[in-house]
Amino acid sequence: MSIVTIERKVLEKNDELAAKNRDIFLHYGAFVLNIVSSPGSGKTSILERTLEHLKGRLGVAVIEGDVQTDFDAQRVAKFGVPVVQIVTNGGCHLDAKLVQDALGSMDLKGIQLLVIENVGNLVCPANYDLGEHMKVVVASTTEGDDKPLKYPAMFRTASVLLINKIDLLPYVNCNITELKNNALRINPALNVFETSCTTNQGIDPWCAWLEKQVKSSLS
Amino acid sequence: MSIVTIERKVLEKNDELAAKNRDIFLHYGAFVLNIVSSPGSGKTSILERTLEHLKGRLGVAVIEGDVQTDFDAQRVAKFGVPVVQIVTNGGCHLDAKLVQDALGSMDLKGIQLLVIENVGNLVCPANYDLGEHMKVVVASTTEGDDKPLKYPAMFRTASVLLINKIDLLPYVNCNITELKNNALRINPALNVFETSCTTNQGIDPWCAWLEKQVKSSLS
Repeated sequence: MSIVTIERKVLEKNDELAAKNRDIFLHYGAFVLNIVSSPGSGKTSILERTLEHLKGRLGVAVIEGDVQTDFDAQRVAKFGVPVVQIVTNGGCHLDAKLVQDALGSMDLKGIQLLVIENVGNLVCPANYDLGEHMKVVVASTTEGDDKPLKYPAMFRTASVLLINKIDLLPYVNCNITELKNNALRINPALNVFETSCTTNQGIDPWCAWLEKQVKSSLS
Repeated sequence: MSIVTIERKVLEKNDELAAKNRDIFLHYGAFVLNIVSSPGSGKTSILERTLEHLKGRLGVAVIEGDVQTDFDAQRVAKFGVPVVQIVTNGGCHLDAKLVQDALGSMDLKGIQLLVIENVGNLVCPANYDLGEHMKVVVASTTEGDDKPLKYPAMFRTASVLLINKIDLLPYVNCNITELKNNALRINPALNVFETSCTTNQGIDPWCAWLEKQVKSSLS
């Protein structure tokens, strides 16, 4: 029982710090995404395509979260945007404190969009508010169409669902209509986009929508 | 700091219960696998192919772990084996206590192989011993070849790596030699098998190896 109490305390403390992060984001006028998914769903690839698309249109910065390695930060740095890597060293999610620490080594002046790429984990990151404006959950077609029902918390707390790797649909056992319906059954307010980082299909609509969100949050 | 202490206590308590589970498995002569992976890597499909293959050769039972739903237990029950579903209700991993509870509704008499399918999560289940003889980690080619380096704990604690969805290799950005080398760099003792549940490639060698493990543990 004591574990539950501690867990509640941890989450309360996290929420306080998330509120502080939110104040910082508001102060700088930065719109913040928290991208979550299973390992290997294509978060970093989508981020690469998004950075390509938004180049010269928005000031973008990135916080990369990984259990180990700075591979993702290296990939993102190639796009010439400020990036800070958080290595959780076994930790299964980012929390508001880790993001606060990362913000200490990042200048948000001129940044209109901050993308936080969370640790690849479809369970734990759902519980930790980082102070973001919205969570984006990526689900790839290769994971099958039942994932929203099996991991509902993540789909419930997200505002956007990117169904990625749609180029692989002919080769995998995934009914995309079913996947979408399962997600909308958990969260009818989800904004759904279908994407492929191999063919670039769906990247334009997603980026146009995102840019509109950022700009209306600034106005 | 108190969180670290509690976490240690939780793990100590888990290890005690895992030892009790181990005694039960030993008593019944059941060889126990703990299958772990990201969501959608194909754990349940591999289990289905394995059950098909071992039918009439070994007494098999299954414990299914899921955050929500009993979809996987339903799939497994079709093979006529005893199956208990654990729904963690948001919990990100199975622990020894949950397995102990499941054993309460399962008769292990005549069971030579018990397969525990863990929650889809490449991070947290690495820390929780369930009393199993070995962990089997499934990594699908669609997740990319860098996962062993990014999620090392899981690959370090596993005895077997099943590289699944090898039928998709022509369509995905995954160098299978690189994936294998990355895994073996983390854990040189890993037994590696390449599988596809679509073409059945690699299922025979995996099942033959498993059957041999089970039989030598009994002798």
